[in-house]
Amino acid sequence: MTLSKKLLLTGAAITLPQMGLAQDAETAAVTAEMVWIMNTLLFLIGGFLVFFMAAGFCMLEGGLVRSKNVTMQMTKNVGLFSLATIAYWAFGYNLMYPLGTWSIEGVLSGVFGVGVLEAVGIDLAGADDGEYASTGSDFFFQLMFCAATASIVSGALAERIKLWPFLIFVVILTGIIYPLQASWKWGGGFLDEMGFLDFAGSTVVHSVGGWAALAGALILGPRIGKYKDGRVNPMPGSNLALATLGMFILWLGWFGFNGGSQLAMGSVGDIADVSRIFANTNAGAAGGAFVALVLTQLLYKKPDLTMVLNGALAGLVSITAEPLTPSLGMATLIGGIGGVIVVFTVPFLDKLKIDDVVGAIPVHLFGGIWGTIAVVLTNPEASLGTQLYSILIVGVFVFVASGAVWLALKAVTGIRVSEEAEINGLDMTELGMEAYPEFSKS
Amino acid sequence: MTLSKKLLLTGAAITLPQMGLAQDAETAAVTAEMVWIMNTLLFLIGGFLVFFMAAGFCMLEGGLVRSKNVTMQMTKNVGLFSLATIAYWAFGYNLMYPLGTWSIEGVLSGVFGVGVLEAVGIDLAGADDGEYASTGSDFFFQLMFCAATASIVSGALAERIKLWPFLIFVVILTGIIYPLQASWKWGGGFLDEMGFLDFAGSTVVHSVGGWAALAGALILGPRIGKYKDGRVNPMPGSNLALATLGMFILWLGWFGFNGGSQLAMGSVGDIADVSRIFANTNAGAAGGAFVALVLTQLLYKKPDLTMVLNGALAGLVSITAEPLTPSLGMATLIGGIGGVIVVFTVPFLDKLKIDDVVGAIPVHLFGGIWGTIAVVLTNPEASLGTQLYSILIVGVFVFVASGAVWLALKAVTGIRVSEEAEINGLDMTELGMEAYPEFSKS
Amino acid sequence: MTLSKKLLLTGAAITLPQMGLAQDAETAAVTAEMVWIMNTLLFLIGGFLVFFMAAGFCMLEGGLVRSKNVTMQMTKNVGLFSLATIAYWAFGYNLMYPLGTWSIEGVLSGVFGVGVLEAVGIDLAGADDGEYASTGSDFFFQLMFCAATASIVSGALAERIKLWPFLIFVVILTGIIYPLQASWKWGGGFLDEMGFLDFAGSTVVHSVGGWAALAGALILGPRIGKYKDGRVNPMPGSNLALATLGMFILWLGWFGFNGGSQLAMGSVGDIADVSRIFANTNAGAAGGAFVALVLTQLLYKKPDLTMVLNGALAGLVSITAEPLTPSLGMATLIGGIGGVIVVFTVPFLDKLKIDDVVGAIPVHLFGGIWGTIAVVLTNPEASLGTQLYSILIVGVFVFVASGAVWLALKAVTGIRVSEEAEINGLDMTELGMEAYPEFSKS
Repeated sequence: MTLSKKLLLTGAAITLPQMGLAQDAETAAVTAEMVWIMNTLLFLIGGFLVFFMAAGFCMLEGGLVRSKNVTMQMTKNVGLFSLATIAYWAFGYNLMYPLGTWSIEGVLSGVFGVGVLEAVGIDLAGADDGEYASTGSDFFFQLMFCAATASIVSGALAERIKLWPFLIFVVILTGIIYPLQASWKWGGGFLDEMGFLDFAGSTVVHSVGGWAALAGALILGPRIGKYKDGRVNPMPGSNLALATLGMFILWLGWFGFNGGSQLAMGSVGDIADVSRIFANTNAGAAGGAFVALVLTQLLYKKPDLTMVLNGALAGLVSITAEPLTPSLGMATLIGGIGGVIVVFTVPFLDKLKIDDVVGAIPVHLFGGIWGTIAVVLTNPEASLGTQLYSILIVGVFVFVASGAVWLALKAVTGIRVSEEAEINGLDMTELGMEAYPEFSKS
Repeated sequence: MTLSKKLLLTGAAITLPQMGLAQDAETAAVTAEMVWIMNTLLFLIGGFLVFFMAAGFCMLEGGLVRSKNVTMQMTKNVGLFSLATIAYWAFGYNLMYPLGTWSIEGVLSGVFGVGVLEAVGIDLAGADDGEYASTGSDFFFQLMFCAATASIVSGALAERIKLWPFLIFVVILTGIIYPLQASWKWGGGFLDEMGFLDFAGSTVVHSVGGWAALAGALILGPRIGKYKDGRVNPMPGSNLALATLGMFILWLGWFGFNGGSQLAMGSVGDIADVSRIFANTNAGAAGGAFVALVLTQLLYKKPDLTMVLNGALAGLVSITAEPLTPSLGMATLIGGIGGVIVVFTVPFLDKLKIDDVVGAIPVHLFGGIWGTIAVVLTNPEASLGTQLYSILIVGVFVFVASGAVWLALKAVTGIRVSEEAEINGLDMTELGMEAYPEFSKS
Repeated sequence: MTLSKKLLLTGAAITLPQMGLAQDAETAAVTAEMVWIMNTLLFLIGGFLVFFMAAGFCMLEGGLVRSKNVTMQMTKNVGLFSLATIAYWAFGYNLMYPLGTWSIEGVLSGVFGVGVLEAVGIDLAGADDGEYASTGSDFFFQLMFCAATASIVSGALAERIKLWPFLIFVVILTGIIYPLQASWKWGGGFLDEMGFLDFAGSTVVHSVGGWAALAGALILGPRIGKYKDGRVNPMPGSNLALATLGMFILWLGWFGFNGGSQLAMGSVGDIADVSRIFANTNAGAAGGAFVALVLTQLLYKKPDLTMVLNGALAGLVSITAEPLTPSLGMATLIGGIGGVIVVFTVPFLDKLKIDDVVGAIPVHLFGGIWGTIAVVLTNPEASLGTQLYSILIVGVFVFVASGAVWLALKAVTGIRVSEEAEINGLDMTELGMEAYPEFSKS
């Protein structure tokens, strides 16, 4: 910033020639190639940011479990991301965006990534007709959303679920359940046709992860000793610095999550919209964190860091269904209500004896529902009825489908580690390896 | 890199048509829309990188405090960023860049983010006349600089300051003090008109944080037991791996901090300048770290990692006032002198019994002053007198204003935790929560 | 994603005018300036992503050493990056890409960064004739590759090597050994002329780090007690959460490593290729991690997290020589074989009593060799003979040159800390500082 903004404006006026002319010939101002390039670049930048959320979830969860289960939580997170990559390539992407019309043939013709990547060194004429960005970049970007749903589940079910049944669930979630329901909205399916609005996935991504986690938590049951003699036993996380790092990484990744969901930045309007989205996403997170900080101070006389972290995340989830149309103040408010939801629903779940280790259900499910409803506050195209209907349809489908898979896994392989393994920690019993072998336990 | 660089040049000559022609019609070579899009993209990329510095500061500070205060340091950092977001939206941004001319009416007309975001889906004609990038992206980018000043303060005052008075200070710093003085330079105010040069904010950002921290440290006093019987008691940080991670994250974010401050990348000249800035920023950090490594080896016979980390950061602060004009060698040297400054001023502050927990004042204040002076070494447009005058004006204003706020807070709410709380740790006494509950203390 | 992909296509068809026309006048569709800007931007984004890999290596290694050596590992990693920056500026870059033809004069004329940065504020006419991107951005990007080789070495030799001899080795590696052999391929030298293919450096970067590490490990010898009475003593890493974070950061950075190596994104073909590369890089990592997970389950009955982390990294190294031409399925397979290699060669090295603390040699050397060979599977331009010959030439050169330097250092300064220092830990004996002073050791 050698020059002040004002001086730069003068400079800009000199170097930006013929604005008037640009207006006259507006459509010609950015060439078709450049639009395609910029849109693709948005997917790539958005994609690597959302990829990094896998690390964010992993650190958040690793910090919130007890040290005897940290190695397992790491293993699950690396494993789930790898399997999501494979499952989304093998079935998911094509199930979500079938080649041609949606049909058994269309779906089958695209399994194992057929047609996902363009040929090497295409030109615009060689790009699929009507495409607006590289399919490879779209696959890369969409994959990261799909993987996020599985990350949500791993946090809720931590400290007691078996590794392999969990990973099998991940394959079904990311290969079938997520893509199928996502096709209803983002694949141009019936929810989309009804006018359902969910910009970056408060419902399509976050509530889906939340519903799958809820079904799992109910079937899996709470950790031993969590609810005893009518009291809720706190089981504090082993590393709040790590959890805070995870939250910050998620916040960072969310700029890609929401900003990339504009799906285009090859015009002034599109990139100005991406700018709105970045600013609003940040505001939503700030609102959620701030409200959780104040509320826990008021309710418990002491601010609660884990609530503040989850407040920020709930703020982010809440603004995800509509990060574009709100003003900054409204975005802060929508996020702030997300923070309120977290502060009240975390103890509420405990009252129901639903044991969610990291607070994933309050953040992603309840925050996601609120965010989907909040679209009607700022987007005149949204219909409350359609939003509620879509929340319900997606919720019922994912809850029932996930529940069926969990029950099947329970029947066939079992999903819960032995009592002894749970008490001694999954790291030593299941993996034979400690995360912090030299830091003695108090 | 399928082809060597040389072969690619040949390739490039084939695919880049009519370079000569491009020269003839140079102004038409990039359309006005594309310039606007690229400039906005620079703010967005720069902005998310600088955002991540909030995590960097948080981890650096969390690693350098003792484990009994880590939860509090995390809480402060998440809290301060959230409040900075809200305060800069509510007052700060408009105070820094008032709509129209600077006037009470201009300032008031922009509170609560009025006019910060463009309408959804604008075109170039709809963009504010004369604008060179999206206002939303500019707000997003500028906010991150504002928040950084508060992060600097939180490190210096760690382990003894009360949460809420600190957060109230943050609101005033980010909503009023920072924006006001920033307007003198970046809002086109009197320092800018005098010819003060501060490319990315060695003074405007870093020394401001440093002055506010110094005023706070003086009024707050040192930690109990830090200076006893004429000796300086070392209080080693609890997690140097975390501190190192924080330093690396800050280094990463600095590419956005300095590179984004070019404010434009829609021309060959602008993006070539951004490239210079990236390379020089990296060189400054390397110089600072290397010099601190060598110096602590020579002075103490043992290299000191915390000095090396702060040396890298001081190198970054030092190159921030002018990352564009130096050669790579000069950038390394400027950063290296930043490293020297840290190695000598950390014990100097201790001699004065000014207790700066993480070394924020040496890095950001002394490094910032040096960096601002160093502009004259490579930028012929800089005047030493103007640089010194601006350092002084900003310093006096921020030190006095911050001091007044700290004194007022001290009088009204108190700013220091009780002796008992400080000794037992802020985490258990103020928050009822430990960061590492299972890692027993030696 | 306000609209489904399908609806957007319709929208795109409206806003993207004259695709047919664009095809007719294709070469004019993106101006020469925009190509230059976009290529430069790719180097900058790729560069900061690869920069962050320095943090990834540091955290991975810091997590895999015992806590008594963590401060030293941090110091080495910050130190090596800083010295690599200085050495590559002083000698390396110009040795790799000499000005004019490769000659003593050409090399000497470019020492200390002469000609590395363009002048401030150039225009396309002022850019070096025939250049396709900013030299400053190229330097920034290439530097990060060079530094990565040194990071690889630091992991293998951890817990016993002296700081300063290690750093002297780094200067020679990054200033001379790496650039010299890299010039054979990427500087347009004889391996490039022979048709050797190594897209982003399975051989040029990763195996080079691996050979240098192997030479060092042989000369340095194993840690005390690692191999005793014919048994391999496990020495578990102190912080697997940190190691996992490091792996995720490396995975993130690899998008810049491989994607940036396309060296261009100013055309539809180039950015579509970058998209392929991103997707394939991710697939390779997923394949490596998944295979290591399954294999360790089958072989040892318990999945091994450190193998899974190294499996992902080996997958990434394996796909680095050719991330463009494989299909997604083939990329997963190539990465998966990288995972197999890691699982079998980690114990193999132990059998040979070659002590590689973090598994750097299996990942970067064996993975790198495999990746270089695997090019022939998908790229018809590759010749197996040339690939093998190049692997051999680079390997012999780097192994011999590194070995000579290690032996010279051993003779002159010694390279190994005292037995006492090794047993008590390098942190207290060499640096007088613990990384985790409050977490008591079991």
